[in-house]
Amino acid sequence: MPRFTSHIFVCCNTRAPGHSRGCCDPSGDESLRDAFQAALKARHLSVDVRANRAGCLDQCEYGPTVVIYPQGIWYGRVRVEDVPRIIEETIVGGRVIDRLVIPDPCLNTKGAVPWPIANP
Amino acid sequence: MPRFTSHIFVCCNTRAPGHSRGCCDPSGDESLRDAFQAALKARHLSVDVRANRAGCLDQCEYGPTVVIYPQGIWYGRVRVEDVPRIIEETIVGGRVIDRLVIPDPCLNTKGAVPWPIANP
Repeated sequence: MPRFTSHIFVCCNTRAPGHSRGCCDPSGDESLRDAFQAALKARHLSVDVRANRAGCLDQCEYGPTVVIYPQGIWYGRVRVEDVPRIIEETIVGGRVIDRLVIPDPCLNTKGAVPWPIANP
Repeated sequence: MPRFTSHIFVCCNTRAPGHSRGCCDPSGDESLRDAFQAALKARHLSVDVRANRAGCLDQCEYGPTVVIYPQGIWYGRVRVEDVPRIIEETIVGGRVIDRLVIPDPCLNTKGAVPWPIANP
């Protein structure tokens, strides 16, 4: 059987309200992960692509965070509404969505480098 | 800041005893993930390498399962005692430990293909 062509890790970490770093899933309902899983199933992609629950990916300040491997695409501020486009453009089409990419200089800084790209 | 040179996802999924597929963390204590995290810290590798908690990686029959990205190395039947060698050989040395590799024909078969490699 083939490996996953894309393995999507969705941060489902929940911290107490008011934590200085925030967290990716304040409500703890894993709705973002569920949205990826449902979208993959609807597109019959679940065999080759997996949307996985992940613990803290340590990019809390730019979250909700999603990392797609083996491509190594880090997306931040991901909303449930972004999921269909991520599936179509990135997973199926192989194109990175610039608006969602956490810039490399921000990664692993624990928020010390502000993300300069404002979302519409 | 650099990306993670290796991002280690450790399956911490727990199922009820007797489940037909088993699970990677029957005790639910996340001891395997903790062992990776402690080993990385002891080797001062925590900045560049992350050991991440993951939900079910869907290779339950070959677990406890660990996948290392972006290299795409799938290790199965991983024990806490294997962690130091994985860190030294694979993470630091860049060498795959054949004994631990889940063979490609087994991946994503939900256990339909027996893993023919007996661990010592």
